[in-house]
Formats: sequence, C-alpha cells, structure tokens
Amino acid sequence: MEFTLHSPLDMHLHLRDGAMLETVAPLSAKEFAGALVMPNLVPPITSKEMVKEYKEQILQASQDGRFTPYMTLFFKSEYDYDFLQDVKDTILAIKLYPAGITTNSSDGVDNFSLDALAPTLEAMSELGIPLCVHGETNGFVMDREAEFVPIYERLAKRFPNLTIIMEHITTKEAVEALMCYENLYATITLHHLYITLDDVAGGLLQPHLFCKPIAKRPEDRMALRKVAFMAHEKVMFGSDSAPHPRSKKEAPGCAAGVFTAPVALAALAQIFEEAGVLENLQKFVSDNAQKIYGITPPKKEVRLIKAPFEVPEKFGDVVPMFAGQKLSWRVERVL
Amino acid sequence: MEFTLHSPLDMHLHLRDGAMLETVAPLSAKEFAGALVMPNLVPPITSKEMVKEYKEQILQASQDGRFTPYMTLFFKSEYDYDFLQDVKDTILAIKLYPAGITTNSSDGVDNFSLDALAPTLEAMSELGIPLCVHGETNGFVMDREAEFVPIYERLAKRFPNLTIIMEHITTKEAVEALMCYENLYATITLHHLYITLDDVAGGLLQPHLFCKPIAKRPEDRMALRKVAFMAHEKVMFGSDSAPHPRSKKEAPGCAAGVFTAPVALAALAQIFEEAGVLENLQKFVSDNAQKIYGITPPKKEVRLIKAPFEVPEKFGDVVPMFAGQKLSWRVERVL
Repeated sequence: MEFTLHSPLDMHLHLRDGAMLETVAPLSAKEFAGALVMPNLVPPITSKEMVKEYKEQILQASQDGRFTPYMTLFFKSEYDYDFLQDVKDTILAIKLYPAGITTNSSDGVDNFSLDALAPTLEAMSELGIPLCVHGETNGFVMDREAEFVPIYERLAKRFPNLTIIMEHITTKEAVEALMCYENLYATITLHHLYITLDDVAGGLLQPHLFCKPIAKRPEDRMALRKVAFMAHEKVMFGSDSAPHPRSKKEAPGCAAGVFTAPVALAALAQIFEEAGVLENLQKFVSDNAQKIYGITPPKKEVRLIKAPFEVPEKFGDVVPMFAGQKLSWRVERVL
Repeated sequence: MEFTLHSPLDMHLHLRDGAMLETVAPLSAKEFAGALVMPNLVPPITSKEMVKEYKEQILQASQDGRFTPYMTLFFKSEYDYDFLQDVKDTILAIKLYPAGITTNSSDGVDNFSLDALAPTLEAMSELGIPLCVHGETNGFVMDREAEFVPIYERLAKRFPNLTIIMEHITTKEAVEALMCYENLYATITLHHLYITLDDVAGGLLQPHLFCKPIAKRPEDRMALRKVAFMAHEKVMFGSDSAPHPRSKKEAPGCAAGVFTAPVALAALAQIFEEAGVLENLQKFVSDNAQKIYGITPPKKEVRLIKAPFEVPEKFGDVVPMFAGQKLSWRVERVL
C-alpha cells in the first residue's frame, strides 16, 4: 500500500537555534513543505530584525529550498499598530504564552485582562495577523487547559475578527469550545493522538513522553482523534516537536517536550490507516492549514509506503518518539 | 521547640534484600521501633522458611536490637487453613497485590472473584491474620484506586471479621470508603501527604517523586491530610519507602517508588506542626497501629527538635525525598 501527501505542513514546530537547529531543521525540511516556527528562544523573538535573522538561520540550516519557515513573533502587549504593520510581511502569526507556562516562556503574558491586551489584539485583527495561543493556566496539571477554555471564549467573543489558534489542544473541553466559535481553530500534535497520561506515568515513568500540555485522559484523546481523523476544517497538524538534548530529558528535572518531527508523517499515516481514514490525512496535514492561514506552500510530494520503519534511537543527541520501535509506514520518497 | 515520639512505627516498608537491605535497614531501625516489611522480593516471600530467613537477614542488617521487623507473606489463594495456622506466629499480616500492579507483583492475584479468594480469606479471618491490600485496578492511572474501592467494599462486607488494611491510600474515594466499614483501616504515606501530581509532572518531571499509586489531585491530598492530621483511629503511618538505585530512577523507564524512610519522622513533625496538630503525631505514627494490629513494639524514645535538617543528596546509592533540601525539624536523639 502506498499514499502520497502533497506539501505537508507542520503548523507548530520548535527548531531552537545554534547546534540544535543544525540537527533538527533538516529533518523537518526533508519531509515537510513548511512549518510554523515557534519564537520561544532565549531571548524570545520580538522584533522584525530578530525574525529576519532567525529565518535566515533556519533557511541555511534546513538544506532544502522547498521548505518554508513561516515565522512568528513572541506576543507582547507593547506591540502597537505601527510596529505590527511594519513587521506584518515577515511573519505569519504571533504566539502568546502565559508567563512561565512552558519552555522559555518566562517573558510571557501574566495578566489576562482583555483590556490590557486589547490594543495589540485589535491591531492584529485589523491587519489580519492570527494569534496562536498556548492555552494553559497555572492550575493543577490535569486541569490547566480546561481552566483556560473560558479565556479562549472571552478572546473569541471580544475579537471576532481575530483568527485564534488553540495550540496543541489536549482535552475534550478544548474540542468543544473550538466548535462554538467561528474564529477559533486548533492544532493537534502527533503524540496527543497516540498517548494518554498512562503512557507517561502509568507503568514505568517515560521522560521522553513528558510534555506540556501533559497528555490527558482516554476520553480526551478520543475527542482529539475524532476531529483529527475526520480532518475537521478547524483543525490542522502541528507537531509541537520539541527537541531537548538527551541529558536534559533523562535526569531529574526532565524538560517538557516530545521530539516527533522525523517520525511524524510515518506515524500519522499509521494511525490514520488504522482508523480507516487515510484519505483524510491530506486535509489534516496540509489543506486545512492552507485555508486557515491563507498560505500556499512550496510543491512537495511525499510518498509513503506501508513497510516497516525502524525508528533510530537518536537523531544527533535527541531521542525521538518511538525510538527503537517499529512503525508500519515510512516515507519512501520525496519528489 | 522539641517533641518526643514513643516507639514510632512504619506500617508499610520496603527493605529489599542483599546490598540494598544493608543500606536501608539501619536507616529505618535507627528511628523506628518497628516496621511492617513488605514481601515483594524476587521471588516473593511465600513460605514460613522464607519469612524466617528474611527476618533473620533484616535483624542482622538493621544493627539495632530495639527494632522489630513485623513480617508479611505475599498473598496466594493457595494458602489453606493448615498452612496459615503453621505460619501464623511468624507473620503479622498477609499482603495482597493485584497481578502486575507495582514493583515485583507479577505473581499477584489476577482474579478478583471473591469465591476464588474465599477459602484463604475465611481462614485468615478465623486465625485473626490481617489482610493488607495494594488497591489498584489496571485502569487509567488516575482512576486505579477509585476503581478498586468497590472491591474493598465487597471484601469488607463478605469478610466482616477480617481486618483489611487499605495500603498507601491516595484518594478521597478511598477515605470515604474507609469510614463506611468497621473492618477497613488504612496506611498513609509521607509523600502523599506532601505532594500531588503537580509535584511529579506539573513543572519539570521529577522521577524521584514518581510512585505507585501515583500522587493524585489537590482535593485527594486534602482528604488524606484531614484524616492523618486528626490521627483518625482508622489510619496509621506507612511510609511505603521504596528504595531504588539512582540509575533505575534517573533513566527512561524509571521505577516507581519514593525513598522516605530516613526523612520520614522529621518531615512528619514539620507538616504536623505546620498544621498545628503536632500533638496528634504520636497516634498517627504509633498508637493507632498498636491498636489496629494488637502489637507492643520495643520501647524507643525519639526526640525531635525544630532545627534545620539538611537532607543528604544520597544514602548509599539511593536518593531520598527532599534530597539537598532543608527540613525544619530533625531527629535529635534516640533513647
């Protein structure tokens, strides 16, 4: 059995910088036609100059002329209309992090007064710049996303012309909210389609599956699978692939993040085929994102075949999801 | 400020064997007058001879003549009246593990038909041997204990003369059930009084706080604190202190267990004092267990003072809870 994906997109990707960028950028660039690149470096990407410089680094590291890094800015409520108008053409979206909620997010928003955010969000609405949101409170780890849902709803209602992306959703509550507001969209990761908290901490503890938002309950995974497998037009693939060096994952104080970029398309083909919906993968992994963001990525044909794929133990110093395991699909060729 | 505990008891303790036993037994024996020792070695303790030999090893390793290891057998539904009558004087209780539910439990019970268990449990009732239970199903990790509660209730109803100890309870559901049946009792650990899942996986991942049953929600911890702090006569301290070599904790596939034995009394004094109920600690950590089990431990006075205790990074090759942190109480002297 084989299957061809046209211009697959990863609409939530961490490429880091320096040596890590050199390791991981080619892995995404090889199989994807484009990716929305997250801005949470140290320091975060907050100016046009930083965006341009980071994009240049990515293009150099990615070693593939048909890979478009769609750039993002790290949200600040200081951004005004003039600033945004000036930066608009260099970015595809702006990413909002609540302060301290995940890796390198200490500079994020710590005040969810919509009045305080309004000037920036109104300017973004007017200029047509989408807002990507890491939607978690600082509450109990299993409740953080569900607790954030009312904030999504307030944002959606108050800024009806703002395209809001609920990033890496993990709960049935998020899926329900998504369906209620026209201007809400969502990315779903590979790992949240596969795992629940059971896989992280139900048997032995598995640090390489530890991520934020943490994997939730079986009924939450079911809700995600339902909208992903039908390729609902409001959802798109965003891996949230988040590489950390092995030493940071396999030690006390293990960093959050699952590294899925180099296995994502194979593992998606496997799970979509198992669900009997392989024909919906094209929409989930490209078409929906093209419509939501209004983008036309480079042409790239990715041929997948149903044949064993032995996932390497490491890529550079980074351990991928399914390390040492066998997937039933693999990328055969990229044209 | 100072405070004296009389003959403190740890009614759920893992001492392991071999070199690990040599490392950890003296740490418990120094500060406790006795401990109920779990039988889940490889192979598990299932005969009178094994009990006697293991007890001898513990006594030799513990280096303290005033420490009583109260022994347990690993529950098997093959145990009949004659076997139990013969072994009775060498043990204090029998520990039941559902198959595969925790460290070294693969030989446990995989059939919760009460009819299948009845002959053994009826003999235990008659002979007055308490049943200690690791009460978890193999369901979703956050639900396992609550799902097991109906089994506790069926056991309590069907064997009203059997003393049943709900081991290391972690949920409000278990606390509620405990209050409804005369013959149900429970142990509560140190770590489940301190932590929730947030401490394990809410920030960076903390393998040294990963245990089974996993730490639950804030409202669950609240329910445990309530009955522990009032030293309810149905609850007693059982550390479930479970040493693993550092290499097994700080790696993918991290083993479950928190090592608390050498910090338990200091940390209990701290949290009971913070709750304003230091006067209830004696009951929680000794008197209740003496009544529930009908035991009289060796006399041992443990003097605690409110003074900084810098917890060592390691004991042998084992990392304790609070490693490298400062507790506000410490054991000053043992008389």
